[in-house]
Amino acid sequence: MADYNMRPAVEGDCEEILRLIQELAVYENMPEQVKMTIEKLRRDGFGEQKFFHCLVVEDTTAKTPEGKAFLWGYALYYFTYSTWEGRVMYLEDLYMSPTYRGRGTGTKLFQAVTQVGVEKDCQRMQWVVLNWNKPSIDFYKSRGAWDVTAKENWNIFRMDRPELEQLSKAN
Amino acid sequence: MADYNMRPAVEGDCEEILRLIQELAVYENMPEQVKMTIEKLRRDGFGEQKFFHCLVVEDTTAKTPEGKAFLWGYALYYFTYSTWEGRVMYLEDLYMSPTYRGRGTGTKLFQAVTQVGVEKDCQRMQWVVLNWNKPSIDFYKSRGAWDVTAKENWNIFRMDRPELEQLSKAN
Repeated sequence: MADYNMRPAVEGDCEEILRLIQELAVYENMPEQVKMTIEKLRRDGFGEQKFFHCLVVEDTTAKTPEGKAFLWGYALYYFTYSTWEGRVMYLEDLYMSPTYRGRGTGTKLFQAVTQVGVEKDCQRMQWVVLNWNKPSIDFYKSRGAWDVTAKENWNIFRMDRPELEQLSKAN
Repeated sequence: MADYNMRPAVEGDCEEILRLIQELAVYENMPEQVKMTIEKLRRDGFGEQKFFHCLVVEDTTAKTPEGKAFLWGYALYYFTYSTWEGRVMYLEDLYMSPTYRGRGTGTKLFQAVTQVGVEKDCQRMQWVVLNWNKPSIDFYKSRGAWDVTAKENWNIFRMDRPELEQLSKAN
């Protein structure tokens, strides 16, 4: 019998999801960039307007000290849009805590995300990877993914909140 | 008096939006990649679940041969989510037809998008640019944007519909 259960996240998972978000940021060498809070996760994932969806891998044999579901990993996604192709599934994070790797659960979680995408009529799935993260790149490429930045020269641009506010007020 | 009007797109604009989407793809040297149809734009932008939002620049002095609003440009956007920062405004396309450039309308359209982002509590705005498109890069950088791919090594990865379907069915 499996000792885990894969399911959509519920509001009570937010503490555990935030713990895993922080673990992932440490792995990516950017822990100081995490400004997320439980309140924001609750509002944006489980409030009136949903800005993201989330699948989680729950341990069925253990609980957190607070008696909540103990999570091994999560996949956080939403839907974007390509004006060339249509609906796009966007995978923001796919993460399995290191202790629970090597048993195929990460692959199953990735697969569960693709199932949602296919059901939702998404024409493709997209996400970002640090270009030095060879284990992840190998994992994705072996499943049919390709590097859009390397092949088509698309770079990601960004404007942060201060510049966004400044431009929004300009005359 | 201005000869144009900036406003949210309505369903009747879809023909004109598709014409501009195709113009932009020609500029980007990838016209063959446009698989979009009027029906998909209507369903995904104006149906029950909205996958995108759109602002358009309408000519107030002319109509299309079919008697519809004649559009100079459009900005198509949606909301994504950063697990580090929160809500993100994502700008899929910002386009002004060449004939109507040089009068500041593109900047005003870009600014209108930032206003929506600020109102929606977005912590940043993001989009992609072809790394050889210097005029666009200069336009964006002069307004406070920066290249996330160049600075932080994030590359875009993608899995297309056939691979998405294949993985979703795997055992």
